[in-house]
Amino acid sequence: MTLTFRERLKQSVEGAGSLLCVGLDPYPDRTPHDQVFDACRRVIDATARYAAAFKPNSAFFEAAGTDGLDILARVIAHVPAGRLVVLDAKRGDIDNSARAYARSAFEILKVDAVTVNAYLGSDSMAPWLADPARGAFVVCHTSNPGARDLQERDVDGEPLYIAVARASVGWSAGGNVGLVVGATFPEEMLAVRRVAPDLPFLVPGFGAQGGDPAAALAAGLDASGGGILASSSRGVFYADDPGRAARELSEELLRARDAARAVV
Amino acid sequence: MTLTFRERLKQSVEGAGSLLCVGLDPYPDRTPHDQVFDACRRVIDATARYAAAFKPNSAFFEAAGTDGLDILARVIAHVPAGRLVVLDAKRGDIDNSARAYARSAFEILKVDAVTVNAYLGSDSMAPWLADPARGAFVVCHTSNPGARDLQERDVDGEPLYIAVARASVGWSAGGNVGLVVGATFPEEMLAVRRVAPDLPFLVPGFGAQGGDPAAALAAGLDASGGGILASSSRGVFYADDPGRAARELSEELLRARDAARAVV
Repeated sequence: MTLTFRERLKQSVEGAGSLLCVGLDPYPDRTPHDQVFDACRRVIDATARYAAAFKPNSAFFEAAGTDGLDILARVIAHVPAGRLVVLDAKRGDIDNSARAYARSAFEILKVDAVTVNAYLGSDSMAPWLADPARGAFVVCHTSNPGARDLQERDVDGEPLYIAVARASVGWSAGGNVGLVVGATFPEEMLAVRRVAPDLPFLVPGFGAQGGDPAAALAAGLDASGGGILASSSRGVFYADDPGRAARELSEELLRARDAARAVV
Repeated sequence: MTLTFRERLKQSVEGAGSLLCVGLDPYPDRTPHDQVFDACRRVIDATARYAAAFKPNSAFFEAAGTDGLDILARVIAHVPAGRLVVLDAKRGDIDNSARAYARSAFEILKVDAVTVNAYLGSDSMAPWLADPARGAFVVCHTSNPGARDLQERDVDGEPLYIAVARASVGWSAGGNVGLVVGATFPEEMLAVRRVAPDLPFLVPGFGAQGGDPAAALAAGLDASGGGILASSSRGVFYADDPGRAARELSEELLRARDAARAVV
């Protein structure tokens, strides 16, 4: 029996003893092209024992040069077994194009999950959902100020991001849909958890963006006290000591989780 | 004085005597990896005299293999001067990530415009707008059935895609924002034209998707009788004779434009 992505994620968090997802964002102005792979390799090696997953952001590999996908593939291949890889790509396109993006992510780069944008609707989601073992995190409520511009517009009496969460619940019959919900908006995260009680959340915005682990975990945990993969990119990747930064954040997240569980 | 993207687009349409944008979508199951560049080159060579622009879809190059961006860069470099290149990528991410995507598109691949997704709001748009000569087509109302799922949800008394169009008008002070509006929904296109009278439309969905040039041009032309870049991908790229398919569609588009102009 093949595990669904949701089960694989749970296993990975439990196996690693960590909720942490380490973002791999090699900025072009801080990491020269010929050092991108080595910089990512060093961060992976230093942080893998404190992380359940890694999240390379496609943008920074595409910005590295026309061999960016090749570097990205080598970085992904370097992630040790037992750690999931979430490709942060925020892709969203119609039928055949979505299928091509899914082929790139799942067959060529061989990642476990992808972040996707659902603005194009159900048929644009289908190619991401074909394999229950691979996941799609739908961008729901992001961590940036612009999240308020469209995501919080009122649709039929509730914010758009809640409508996106509800649609995502509808797409998650196979157990392989999650939601991207930014750490910097804990109230909104609580509202999303209410309409999507069983979906795993990928929560960016810890570290450099200032998301508070205690507030985010209290808002976002599911009824079983899980369902959160907490991501930090710059705060770990460009730390003086990425291993230490990952360990400290991982421990803070576990304390925040245990405190939130105690309240429930 | 540098021309804005909107002016460059107008010049390109007038210079080519065509509204046609030829989509470059090399499907992995129809065009083997080692033939992707040659297939695109042949289509460009055969259709350039009938087209104002080319629109490579990033998805199909990413699906070709880890050297997909290198192939894409070579294809883009092969487009003759005077023809614009719109990268169909539907990117959308926060600040630094959006900047990295813009760097990839404008500095590495050197395209003239990109399709983008505005779900993440104003700050996610800013990096695309920094250079007035380069454009961003915001995905507004797409050509697929799933367009109805979120894009047509009612926000504060109007559909979400209209709210996206209004926001895009606000972002277009530099003359470099356009909208993606599918040919298969002419009524919705007319509604978008009402709230965005001056924005150029990139209109996919002609050819294989069945968009009707007469209906789309009647709905989408701006007050000057322009403002439309009409795109066909499969219908030209995989035609037995792509040059002939491009010429016929280009002529049909011009007739439809002239008929629509006569009515106004």
